[in-house]
Amino acid sequence: MSKITLAHGSGGTLTQELIESVFFKFLGNKFLSKNDDSAILPGEAANIAFTTDSFVIKPFFFPGGDIGKLSICGTVNDLAVNGATPKYISCGFILEEGLDIEDLRKIVESMAHCAKVAGVDIVCGDTKVVEKNGVDSIFINTSGIGVLRDGVHLSVDNISVGDKVIVTGNLGDHGIAVLSKRKGLEFESESISDCAPLNHMLKTLTDSVEGVKFMRDATRGGVATTLNEIVKHKDFGIMIEEEKVPVLDSVRSACELLGLDPLYIANEGKALIIIDKKCEAKALEILGSNEYGRNAASIGEITQDNQDMVCLRTPLGATRVLGLLSADPIPRIC
Amino acid sequence: MSKITLAHGSGGTLTQELIESVFFKFLGNKFLSKNDDSAILPGEAANIAFTTDSFVIKPFFFPGGDIGKLSICGTVNDLAVNGATPKYISCGFILEEGLDIEDLRKIVESMAHCAKVAGVDIVCGDTKVVEKNGVDSIFINTSGIGVLRDGVHLSVDNISVGDKVIVTGNLGDHGIAVLSKRKGLEFESESISDCAPLNHMLKTLTDSVEGVKFMRDATRGGVATTLNEIVKHKDFGIMIEEEKVPVLDSVRSACELLGLDPLYIANEGKALIIIDKKCEAKALEILGSNEYGRNAASIGEITQDNQDMVCLRTPLGATRVLGLLSADPIPRIC
Repeated sequence: MSKITLAHGSGGTLTQELIESVFFKFLGNKFLSKNDDSAILPGEAANIAFTTDSFVIKPFFFPGGDIGKLSICGTVNDLAVNGATPKYISCGFILEEGLDIEDLRKIVESMAHCAKVAGVDIVCGDTKVVEKNGVDSIFINTSGIGVLRDGVHLSVDNISVGDKVIVTGNLGDHGIAVLSKRKGLEFESESISDCAPLNHMLKTLTDSVEGVKFMRDATRGGVATTLNEIVKHKDFGIMIEEEKVPVLDSVRSACELLGLDPLYIANEGKALIIIDKKCEAKALEILGSNEYGRNAASIGEITQDNQDMVCLRTPLGATRVLGLLSADPIPRIC
Repeated sequence: MSKITLAHGSGGTLTQELIESVFFKFLGNKFLSKNDDSAILPGEAANIAFTTDSFVIKPFFFPGGDIGKLSICGTVNDLAVNGATPKYISCGFILEEGLDIEDLRKIVESMAHCAKVAGVDIVCGDTKVVEKNGVDSIFINTSGIGVLRDGVHLSVDNISVGDKVIVTGNLGDHGIAVLSKRKGLEFESESISDCAPLNHMLKTLTDSVEGVKFMRDATRGGVATTLNEIVKHKDFGIMIEEEKVPVLDSVRSACELLGLDPLYIANEGKALIIIDKKCEAKALEILGSNEYGRNAASIGEITQDNQDMVCLRTPLGATRVLGLLSADPIPRIC
């Protein structure tokens, strides 16, 4: 059988076959149980972080990754930016009848590989199948548990005027890479998604530099949306220097062509870091020595002026507000 | 605005409005954060249980419940049958463009109510919106964390010949209730879904009776599928006495009409319990005094014969095998 059928989601023999031949084949570990609905995990005296994310990206294979890799990176990064060490991941699959089992296998293999790189275990799962047109190909939910590291206290409340705003690399790669493969819009592009697990890099940073105040992965809505969430109802503003924002030429060209702003495009392997200005240079050095942080840049700072607002200074010295968009310029990017 | 649009899933202003006016309105608690991607939870020295489940039920309102109530009960019960006290729940929504926001509000309110009854906190969430026909109305994933209770060790490995098989009430109510409202098949039925959080009842049972060996909620595939999972590759069998299986007359009639077997129909508020025969009477007494266990019954036992098989003895004394089905008789029931 080469296609997913409703019976694969029935709990009966075909479900068990799928579990054996796909899920256990790639994901097996000491916590994942064939018999139990729940994974039993060792307790942790430290506080834990718990997060969830659903992935509905279209198309589900794209330059630089696939929905499986994305589903692991997304949840790993959500935990990592909170100063947690990601440990356990759950995965819930919703599959469309007719999905190619070979595609599913590639996706699950990619999840397994990414989990290994990130150092997390996929410990429990669930599969539902819905009839043709009941869902678009494949959706994956991952939830994750991480352990908070001692001495790491990240919060918007730590932020103060003069802090620096760092991004860990070029912006907009993921959104443009996905868009370039989308049916009805296909265009030539050298863009490759930046989808990557950032936990090891961010741990090294917070282990080495004391002045990290706040981190966030700049996914849906891009860096501009994340910055707006930071300043909301706060007595400070943020000023971004446009010429310091790292964007690949290919991404910039595609954005110009499509009328998009790279600051609003989703990234899947970029963190935004607010840091004490005294630690800026050290942080850039540490990030720059990591494969996922090579193009890290300091792009702006926390200001006393323009409270509750994110502003952008253009190379010509003009200033404009980077507001919150009401809609995403590119839907189904994650 | 009365309908969900793609912009509600963008991370921009409409997403924030939806979070405020629907999710926070009903789900707010001290762990749920508007600013953070992860919930920060106190650590637990005891082992923890972690589980995930996606809900794709159709229709999403049905007699006795809705997809929201179901999504909480399902995950609470998965934790409870493992001997864990359910504590924290994540929820991931995938919404179809055009979904009525009033319907979403009812569903979220129902989740909040059910979480309160079960004594769990909904601590983190995620919302994605996909275009019309990209998904069928609304899907919800819930993942859950529970704390294992001291002295409770439930496992199929505890089971031995002579143990009794108890179900906590009438079988098949959920499946028939949902089916009776399904488009193209609507029929008169008094059936009401049994969807309920069983954690308090099962805790009382395991606190009071030492001989509980194993528990499982008999959802997708019904009691027969769960029993088959128990005997798989084991050196014992299970014999069920058909006349002892509690089934409502209305459910039995509907099953006869539709050619279905109540033993294979999904339940959403019924646990299957394998227990030392010495504790059978006490367990039935405790279950019977709980609103969700009033019709609890002992329906069979673990046998030396028929290893690796589940058998059914009919009232006339004939015996037949209750095998594992390859497909679910009723898809999208949970």
